Amino acid sequence: MDFERYDRIRPIRWEGDQLSLLDQRRLPFVVEHVACRDSEAVGRAIHDLVVRGAPAIGIAAAWGAVLAARGVDAVDGAAALARLAPALDRLQAARPTAVNLMWALARLRRVLAAAGADWAAVLEAEARAIETEDLAANRHMGALGAALIEPGSGVLTHCNTGSLATAGFGTALGVIRAGVAEGRIGRVFASETRPWLQGARLTVWELLQDGIAATLIADGAAAHLMKTGAVQWVIVGADRICANGDTANKIGTYSHAIAARHHGAKVMVVAPSSTVDMATAHGDDIEIEMRDPAELLSVAGTRTVAEGVQAWNPVFDVTPAGLIDAIVTERGVVMAPDRARMQALFGPG
Amino acid sequence: MDFERYDRIRPIRWEGDQLSLLDQRRLPFVVEHVACRDSEAVGRAIHDLVVRGAPAIGIAAAWGAVLAARGVDAVDGAAALARLAPALDRLQAARPTAVNLMWALARLRRVLAAAGADWAAVLEAEARAIETEDLAANRHMGALGAALIEPGSGVLTHCNTGSLATAGFGTALGVIRAGVAEGRIGRVFASETRPWLQGARLTVWELLQDGIAATLIADGAAAHLMKTGAVQWVIVGADRICANGDTANKIGTYSHAIAARHHGAKVMVVAPSSTVDMATAHGDDIEIEMRDPAELLSVAGTRTVAEGVQAWNPVFDVTPAGLIDAIVTERGVVMAPDRARMQALFGPG
Repeated sequence: MDFERYDRIRPIRWEGDQLSLLDQRRLPFVVEHVACRDSEAVGRAIHDLVVRGAPAIGIAAAWGAVLAARGVDAVDGAAALARLAPALDRLQAARPTAVNLMWALARLRRVLAAAGADWAAVLEAEARAIETEDLAANRHMGALGAALIEPGSGVLTHCNTGSLATAGFGTALGVIRAGVAEGRIGRVFASETRPWLQGARLTVWELLQDGIAATLIADGAAAHLMKTGAVQWVIVGADRICANGDTANKIGTYSHAIAARHHGAKVMVVAPSSTVDMATAHGDDIEIEMRDPAELLSVAGTRTVAEGVQAWNPVFDVTPAGLIDAIVTERGVVMAPDRARMQALFGPG
Repeated sequence: MDFERYDRIRPIRWEGDQLSLLDQRRLPFVVEHVACRDSEAVGRAIHDLVVRGAPAIGIAAAWGAVLAARGVDAVDGAAALARLAPALDRLQAARPTAVNLMWALARLRRVLAAAGADWAAVLEAEARAIETEDLAANRHMGALGAALIEPGSGVLTHCNTGSLATAGFGTALGVIRAGVAEGRIGRVFASETRPWLQGARLTVWELLQDGIAATLIADGAAAHLMKTGAVQWVIVGADRICANGDTANKIGTYSHAIAARHHGAKVMVVAPSSTVDMATAHGDDIEIEMRDPAELLSVAGTRTVAEGVQAWNPVFDVTPAGLIDAIVTERGVVMAPDRARMQALFGPG
């Protein structure tokens, strides 16, 4: 397929001495980049959602580690790793649920531990590899996922899993890009995704840049939309996939999955294998990140709720494997995921 | 129970020569009333959502009819009715789905048709009766619904069905008020209710006025909340209840009902019997009001979505009777509603 036509956005740019991040808090009206010159700034950007989306967080953190290494003098990788440990720990703590963050930093720790005097170059090459592999993986997943979709299907996606959430092309949105390019997808719906409105602010904007018309719906309208027969697949990303296929993803995913099962629509989870965490047996073991209740009390900077009101603001929910029809990774597809089928592709935990 | 303590708000005030409506578009930060001096202004206020909530719309429309009658010279009710027909039709067209609007105006037409020279006084007395009966019905429904709730339960409500949506006390929120007063309800959750945020702007504010602490959640977080075991009852209002118990209510209700069934939580619909429409056999026959897609493109007056994006904005969805455990009206409760049980309480359509 014509990747350039369907993939015009790059949220993360390494500029040799700084990391430039497209500020996703200000999209779609202000297209502005935040320059991070040290790893602290990258950690803040991850925490404050300047950059978001599990793969993009991992990539940004990797470049954050490269920034942390600037000015560090060490004879070899092991010595560098000892010096860098606090900075890497701080980067890892920026978002607790995203397994890609942990995965990217573990990968850097591993190559560092084995590196010699050229450890700094090794570290930078590994960060670059994390980024380029992500883009390649997304294009591959796009083809794998699109092949599951019957021509003429309607699809619903949630949150933003596109170029903005990755090195490019996207995970779930990559499948949608590929499905549209191949003529399999007739109609794309995107749910708003309160409280951050990633669907409303990012997904429909991103698709519009590539000439794909998506129809925005309120999160609560998804079940009614499915009842009309307009949705054959719910296609979502993942922040963590457990050994049995249980999947943590943006709050609201679980609700869509229950409604999909109720209406006979299918659910596809699309994520790089770095999102798969075979060490976590099932969804009950995932710590769900809670964010500031204040995020529910305002919308787009405007206070909407009276003073004194409490809110409950989990960022993720867990969709059990039993509600998922396909997990698509760059390593392959797991249909009707369970522990045995996950192990067949990803090995034991 | 101490009704004054738990019911301090009155959204609709008849002031003899004008109707004063609490402007619900500006709550919770601006508490301001809109004065309607003719029936056209009342129709506009209904259409523009100054006043909202099925019972409140019916009451406002009744007072709108009283305003339309000012200056009309007619020898008896039948003659007045002929003169008032265009104004009544315009009031009825202000919101297409709300059956209470139709019901209130039909009731006025009926008494007018039978009235003599004192038709104007008869009309005004009937409008007042519609209002006072609504408040009494709500208090009665509160007791009936609360009796179904096990002590220590958590409840989730959607949209606003409170004093603001009625003559006072509320329907679903009336049951929650009564349940809290009786010590049956341990925790109250309210979902935001995009796109108009009635839950965020109105419900939690209204409950706070009465000293009831409600916890706000995103619409998409309801299923995850239920998974934690925090919700025993989903308690909602209705815009129309069909002969078989299928219920049209604010978009998002259906999604909550599916999630409730999935988790073993129960669903209670609370609405005055005027909401029951035995002439509509089932939910598929209900025309779903579509509103301006622009309502999804902005939040609280701030544009959040890029130019050129399409949206799909149904105001209501239909929850099939099979997902409803109890329909509570002032005439009594229908458990596990179906056509036969509905007919037993409401008669044939």
